[in-house]
Amino acid sequence: MTVCVFHQAIPGYLGRSDTHLSLTLALKGDQPDTVYLRTEPDNEEQLCAMKPVRSESGWVWYQAETGWALHTDLTLYAFKLVWLERSCWVSASGLSTAMPPLTEVFRISRHHTVPEWISAQVFYQIFPDRFHCGDPRSTPASHQYDGMDEPSTIRRRWGERPNPEQGGNEFFGGDLPGIVQKLDYLQQTLGVTALYLNPIFSSRSNHKYDAENYLKVDAHLGGEAALAELSAQLHQRGMRLVLDAVFNHTSVFHPWFIAAQLNDPEARARYVFTGTQKSDYVSWKGHAGLPVLDMAHPDNLHDLLTGESAVIKRWLRPPYAIDGWRMDVIHMMGHGPGAANNADTVRIIRQAIKSENPDAYLLGEHFFEATSWLQGDQEDGAMNYYGFTHPIRAFLAGCDNRYDPLQLDAAGLANWLAQARSRIPFAQQLAQLNQIDSHDTRRFITLLNGHQPRYRMALGFLLTYVGTPCLYYGDEISLPGGDDPDCRRCFSWDESEWHAETLAFTQDWVQLRKQLPALQGGALVPLYAVDDVMVFARVLGDLQCLVALNRGGGCDIEVVDALLPLAADWQHQAGEGSLKPADRGWELSLASESIVLWSRSAQ
Amino acid sequence: MTVCVFHQAIPGYLGRSDTHLSLTLALKGDQPDTVYLRTEPDNEEQLCAMKPVRSESGWVWYQAETGWALHTDLTLYAFKLVWLERSCWVSASGLSTAMPPLTEVFRISRHHTVPEWISAQVFYQIFPDRFHCGDPRSTPASHQYDGMDEPSTIRRRWGERPNPEQGGNEFFGGDLPGIVQKLDYLQQTLGVTALYLNPIFSSRSNHKYDAENYLKVDAHLGGEAALAELSAQLHQRGMRLVLDAVFNHTSVFHPWFIAAQLNDPEARARYVFTGTQKSDYVSWKGHAGLPVLDMAHPDNLHDLLTGESAVIKRWLRPPYAIDGWRMDVIHMMGHGPGAANNADTVRIIRQAIKSENPDAYLLGEHFFEATSWLQGDQEDGAMNYYGFTHPIRAFLAGCDNRYDPLQLDAAGLANWLAQARSRIPFAQQLAQLNQIDSHDTRRFITLLNGHQPRYRMALGFLLTYVGTPCLYYGDEISLPGGDDPDCRRCFSWDESEWHAETLAFTQDWVQLRKQLPALQGGALVPLYAVDDVMVFARVLGDLQCLVALNRGGGCDIEVVDALLPLAADWQHQAGEGSLKPADRGWELSLASESIVLWSRSAQ
Repeated sequence: MTVCVFHQAIPGYLGRSDTHLSLTLALKGDQPDTVYLRTEPDNEEQLCAMKPVRSESGWVWYQAETGWALHTDLTLYAFKLVWLERSCWVSASGLSTAMPPLTEVFRISRHHTVPEWISAQVFYQIFPDRFHCGDPRSTPASHQYDGMDEPSTIRRRWGERPNPEQGGNEFFGGDLPGIVQKLDYLQQTLGVTALYLNPIFSSRSNHKYDAENYLKVDAHLGGEAALAELSAQLHQRGMRLVLDAVFNHTSVFHPWFIAAQLNDPEARARYVFTGTQKSDYVSWKGHAGLPVLDMAHPDNLHDLLTGESAVIKRWLRPPYAIDGWRMDVIHMMGHGPGAANNADTVRIIRQAIKSENPDAYLLGEHFFEATSWLQGDQEDGAMNYYGFTHPIRAFLAGCDNRYDPLQLDAAGLANWLAQARSRIPFAQQLAQLNQIDSHDTRRFITLLNGHQPRYRMALGFLLTYVGTPCLYYGDEISLPGGDDPDCRRCFSWDESEWHAETLAFTQDWVQLRKQLPALQGGALVPLYAVDDVMVFARVLGDLQCLVALNRGGGCDIEVVDALLPLAADWQHQAGEGSLKPADRGWELSLASESIVLWSRSAQ
Repeated sequence: MTVCVFHQAIPGYLGRSDTHLSLTLALKGDQPDTVYLRTEPDNEEQLCAMKPVRSESGWVWYQAETGWALHTDLTLYAFKLVWLERSCWVSASGLSTAMPPLTEVFRISRHHTVPEWISAQVFYQIFPDRFHCGDPRSTPASHQYDGMDEPSTIRRRWGERPNPEQGGNEFFGGDLPGIVQKLDYLQQTLGVTALYLNPIFSSRSNHKYDAENYLKVDAHLGGEAALAELSAQLHQRGMRLVLDAVFNHTSVFHPWFIAAQLNDPEARARYVFTGTQKSDYVSWKGHAGLPVLDMAHPDNLHDLLTGESAVIKRWLRPPYAIDGWRMDVIHMMGHGPGAANNADTVRIIRQAIKSENPDAYLLGEHFFEATSWLQGDQEDGAMNYYGFTHPIRAFLAGCDNRYDPLQLDAAGLANWLAQARSRIPFAQQLAQLNQIDSHDTRRFITLLNGHQPRYRMALGFLLTYVGTPCLYYGDEISLPGGDDPDCRRCFSWDESEWHAETLAFTQDWVQLRKQLPALQGGALVPLYAVDDVMVFARVLGDLQCLVALNRGGGCDIEVVDALLPLAADWQHQAGEGSLKPADRGWELSLASESIVLWSRSAQ
């Protein structure tokens, strides 16, 4: 039995109205006597026989309409296929004999939509101090903050290696004017369409995950004027901008915390104190420099989120008009010392952002599984370490999130990816932010000891998989880097230091991502996953892409066709490999350690 | 790698204090370099290296202690095993290379305990009108309720077949005094220890899922005095009693609804009206006779649940002192027309019951997956159709919950069972109410066309599996029955109509269930599941049971030993089969269509 479930990905096949949801399923093979749509409108099973509406090339299309669930925003559904002698289920995790668990059935949010622009982007993450210095006069000087209980600030020369001893106190001088100066590089040379910046609000650290003033852009990065200028230039180019909000904790130099330590009871109530001493405050993961804000406190909610001039709203407004927020450690924000009432807090964050701009992106930081935050009512997407970075790192680099050894073959990779997708509505899958590395991880090229073929497989996979790709600055030139802060090295503007072949590869695949809508919004159809080879398709209406990854030696494999028929030949788009028709599908010849992309379209 | 996770099942190995949880893991095979306990105390991963504390026969025991999760009642945990070249995870769904999803990691509730007496019971469900008539004078007469908008009541002769045309209007005369008269049969002949009765509160239907007065036991069943007498006799015998609460809807003859239809605004507000007409009320699944109560209405909450003399509390008090409630369609109860705020409603139900008697059983009716109700804060256990009845029915009778054909082999059975268990804390797994059939299903023997060997496999499995077994009256004598009302036939007291061999089988296995604590509270260790044969162990400390089911022809299989070492030989307890040691475990010889039980103990 071959199955095609029509996600939102296939325009015209899934319809939604205020009251109903229309669903289509196509089946190839021994057709069932009855095909049911299964829902739980009131927590009890409801089966609705689907009507066959079309047939072609052995496929039959079935349709049914159902009301939205009455008591909950999420409508869950699956399909039951019944023959005379047997039956089975189609759920988000595929075909099964057993009734699928509710965590793995299809799901769609009735009231919460995800901005459509997100999945059309190719993001680029910049750690501002390390990308480009546009105005050396504003760079912090050595000893800038001396006498303030911190190790001495050091001004470093561009291109030197970050020093772990210095932590957040060394500065290389990258700033917002520097980014503005490199927009041609980003847009024209590289082709990215959106920027995500690590924090830029006033703070005396280079990473600024410890804000001293949420209402000021750090003067060393160029201040508010530079942000307004960057935003204007980006928007003029049709590009987008997402900033990093760190509301879980502040710097100890934030006026609220200074006042709290001077025993101002109102300021003290903003933080979580477990006793009466000055030192009795809860800090993020025990870092004394990061006192945790209590999200139960109405002043915090008002000033940061809900008030008319709340921080989160201010930067969504002109002249900054940012396009979304990446919320730092969003899963840890809550009432009191831990993450109590976290879901309520995140819903308030969503409401605050969407009330200002329904089209803004709410991106949550999660180093682990974010399923429960991605059911519609909380985040649009998460930093997809769990469902993207960890599995592809295991498959290609043989290690896990902590760099412990992890052996994963293609079947294991495909299962992990599928399992992660199956629990999340399709719209939210598309808005996940996929990265191969970030400011918090060793760089992928370093995990691979500089081995370029596998590195390009990772880049190619990033640009073809479900979810919104995000390059971390320097990925495109193969900038290496180990543990933080080594993964935050300066971008090199000396082109002789660039890995030209990898840059060209990245440019090509970024362009393909932008040219092929199926790579942006298409449903994923798993086709093959054995040993070293995984093949999948992305399908959007009459647009189909075929992607093959082979981490082993050159090989020929036969892939069974599970795609809807399309009167068009496959066009080779990139990568080393060839394809020819075979009895049940296609025979693929793949070069060693390669990723290949084909596409076809009825037009 | 062979793994033993020490559940609550193994006394002394898992410890809990107010602040901490101690966990033990035992591993046999190539020992990892590091074994971690993984938790998410603040929604972020925390790994704690476990200490090897003991080794024996190739096994090594590892222990670690962790604080309870700070922000939530449930503490989630898994184990990570790291070797030089590889790593893997141990979660509730077993060993995996990929990081397990959070729905499948181990879980334990900090604040909500499950009464320990539950899993020590063998329940017996009685549909009161059909078990035994103790007082013929109280049986409803024909035409009892004539003139009341209902089809005419009919008094039927004991033993006649229920008539589908008559629905709830025919009466055979079973009553509470009849149950009292048969307590010797139940306790001494059959050996059950607890009764669950279908509804007994005043109602003119035979099933009484439409109450007219929650404060009265139906006079035809014997009234309150008969309930007090039944309860006293049961408790004197050390037996337990659970009643059926139908609070989602009432009868149209309930005074509240009658008043509502007379436009009493206070009464009307108790129900869900969608318009101003009398007919504009929401009824359960569209049955006009079952108007739905709005659980958002404070009077309903007060009168049924929260008030000092609320219905749910009244019957928990002497002289009735019932031991628990089975809550009808608990998943559908909520605010307004659907199941909105259902979880809040169920938490109120829990609070109401436990405030009166913390040791009372809260059992929810769920025909489908009940995972989210079984995480500690809601139900103690559910009617386990999803995780028990459906899969064993598929394996032995080849059909699913709707009697559609479903082919499931032993591997599919084991997977389904494991998947259902893996999402529920162990304490709640033990308090699930397992049944092979009920007043809402075709009887298992009828699904099997009277084929006794497979029927006894189902009975044996019921009495050896994780969860609390519940026989449905007549199961033990092989009473047949098709769709409701045929599955509610009169119990026959003519012993010549009993299936003597099946009764003897049931008696034996009920006794074994009671004699072998590992069958009551033991962890389940899957050992073998191929084609027609499934073998598993139940382990409680130094007590081990081994259960083999074979639905095919006679066969010999080799089962690999995955159990902790025990200096004792297996004792054959019941069923046709033999066991002898083999290289890696045991060789089992199983008769065709059989279930066999062995046990061993260090004592």
